[in-house]
Amino acid sequence: MISLADVYHVVEATVPLYVVMIIAYISVKWWKLFTPDQCAGINKFVAKYSIPLLSFQVISTNNPYKMNLKLILADLLQKLIAFLVLTAVTKVSSRGDLNWIITGISLSTLPNTLILGLPLLTAMYGDEAAVLLSQIIVLQSLIWYNLLLFLFELSATKGAAPVTPALEAPETEIPQQAQTKEEEEVKVEVARIRTARKTKTMLILLTVGKNFIRNPNTHATSIGLIWASIHYKWGITMPEIVEQSIIIISNGGIGMAMFSLGLFMASRVSIIACGKRMAVVAMGMKFLMGPALMALSSTAVGLRGKVFREAIVQAALPQGIVPFVFAKEYDINPDILSTGVIFGILISVPIALGYYFLLAL
Amino acid sequence: MISLADVYHVVEATVPLYVVMIIAYISVKWWKLFTPDQCAGINKFVAKYSIPLLSFQVISTNNPYKMNLKLILADLLQKLIAFLVLTAVTKVSSRGDLNWIITGISLSTLPNTLILGLPLLTAMYGDEAAVLLSQIIVLQSLIWYNLLLFLFELSATKGAAPVTPALEAPETEIPQQAQTKEEEEVKVEVARIRTARKTKTMLILLTVGKNFIRNPNTHATSIGLIWASIHYKWGITMPEIVEQSIIIISNGGIGMAMFSLGLFMASRVSIIACGKRMAVVAMGMKFLMGPALMALSSTAVGLRGKVFREAIVQAALPQGIVPFVFAKEYDINPDILSTGVIFGILISVPIALGYYFLLAL
Repeated sequence: MISLADVYHVVEATVPLYVVMIIAYISVKWWKLFTPDQCAGINKFVAKYSIPLLSFQVISTNNPYKMNLKLILADLLQKLIAFLVLTAVTKVSSRGDLNWIITGISLSTLPNTLILGLPLLTAMYGDEAAVLLSQIIVLQSLIWYNLLLFLFELSATKGAAPVTPALEAPETEIPQQAQTKEEEEVKVEVARIRTARKTKTMLILLTVGKNFIRNPNTHATSIGLIWASIHYKWGITMPEIVEQSIIIISNGGIGMAMFSLGLFMASRVSIIACGKRMAVVAMGMKFLMGPALMALSSTAVGLRGKVFREAIVQAALPQGIVPFVFAKEYDINPDILSTGVIFGILISVPIALGYYFLLAL
Repeated sequence: MISLADVYHVVEATVPLYVVMIIAYISVKWWKLFTPDQCAGINKFVAKYSIPLLSFQVISTNNPYKMNLKLILADLLQKLIAFLVLTAVTKVSSRGDLNWIITGISLSTLPNTLILGLPLLTAMYGDEAAVLLSQIIVLQSLIWYNLLLFLFELSATKGAAPVTPALEAPETEIPQQAQTKEEEEVKVEVARIRTARKTKTMLILLTVGKNFIRNPNTHATSIGLIWASIHYKWGITMPEIVEQSIIIISNGGIGMAMFSLGLFMASRVSIIACGKRMAVVAMGMKFLMGPALMALSSTAVGLRGKVFREAIVQAALPQGIVPFVFAKEYDINPDILSTGVIFGILISVPIALGYYFLLAL
């Protein structure tokens, strides 16, 4: 079924992305063209303008009334299974905690759909693939990244908890105390702990909320979805001036994002920052567990044919950048995710092609 | 002849450019999103990658065997007249020197063709205009910018000369000295001065040469011209991978360049950095002298019709960025050129539209 021309087509679509990344890498490593602070400026431009506008463009041109419900269900199921499996593993294993669940979910279920996924899958399966992928991008930006942010906040607050140990006192201890103290006192104590917990939850929600408001990506995706809902319902088109103003920046979005990735690569001492053993585990989670979970959930919801194949290939894309940015911000295994991003990108095309061929058999 | 729809078409094409510029301006002035060093990083990216690749794309798709010879001649003549007029004025005026000739030439004959010219003229005169304008861009990048660089180097060396006053000794003084000294001595002295002059010329050429080699724009334009010569002679097309690798960055070129302009605007204390009086003179040279000279030389070489109109409108575009970058590097009236760039851009659309209407009558 698959000809050498098909392979060349995919290579043709992805090599330019790598060329841009390599130029950025060389600019810093060899030519010393950009200082770390100047790199930070370019990365900030990409994070605050290129990526949000690119996301907006993808989401606003996606018909929300024609979503592939099975695909959405499969995507949802994949994340749920990943969460359950990872929770089970961390409960059994010695070093298991919330941080490892977060890292595991990032690696296995949140691939780089926007920057690498769109060109790669369009080259493999044609323009229809872009339509399906943008549905996954919508879910990723609107739901999963926000849930991930919530988990990061939760972990950060839990980590900070030992400073106020009273808040961590498990409820089961209270009845024991009750035997030695007056009932009234216990009630007050329980109420105090409950209030403290409520306050804590409120604080977490507040921080998450604050991060949402500050995150231009959340704005871009939600406005994109609102606009798409209006556009595809009432057929109102965007004024040419507004559209062009967005396109003029988003046009260069993928190129700028790849450039930024190259700068990021150059800023790391080693491509495999987390050590070889951990890198193998991370790559296993990324390129085996991720697609396997997607295959499982896609089969469960009855996805078939081309959509099934696309769902699995997209799950085999390298680690997304947003989860890495979060991991760096909260300092939760950022080295593992950086390996997931960089090493993942380096080996992603042959792996994606491998899945592509395997599924075409 | 001209309908309101035409005007709207032009506005539609230029407003997005301004939106991007304003966002950049606000990002720095209000949101303090980028530090000066981070801005420098973005500007460097634009100068070293976006603009050269954009120039390459424009020049490599321009057929060098189908150049409009009359347009080239008119362009050449405009620069020559400007040089003669400015030299005459500086000879007469009190503050006249090479620096003022350089600034005058930059203002009156080197407009912003690549970033503002292409979208604006395409909106006014259609895709054909882009073909003509790219010929002017070829000349600008390959010839005029290099000659300008040479003049800047010359001025810088002349400025540094007082340290070695012997080099500045006018030749007319030598015969007078000869009357009191031996003839042999004079000959040695003359030879010494000549050698010193030669060394000086060599040094200037060397510095200019070094700047050429370091300037990615010179590379991009010359390779672009070489490629276009091969492509349009033997019909060899560029491999898709190479073309896509270039397009992936150049695509965002105009947007990035406008963003960089906005950052530049925000970095200046005042939009009119050189004072109001000088700004009026600069704007006069830019928007009156420039187009007038072009009209004169275009008439002289017999340009007519649409090409004549396009030649004049492009001459009324705001000050180009490259001459400003040079002026800043050599510290020769950079404030006047910065006013030419920023203030020029702010008032350029109505002025260009004014010329457009005037010529359409």
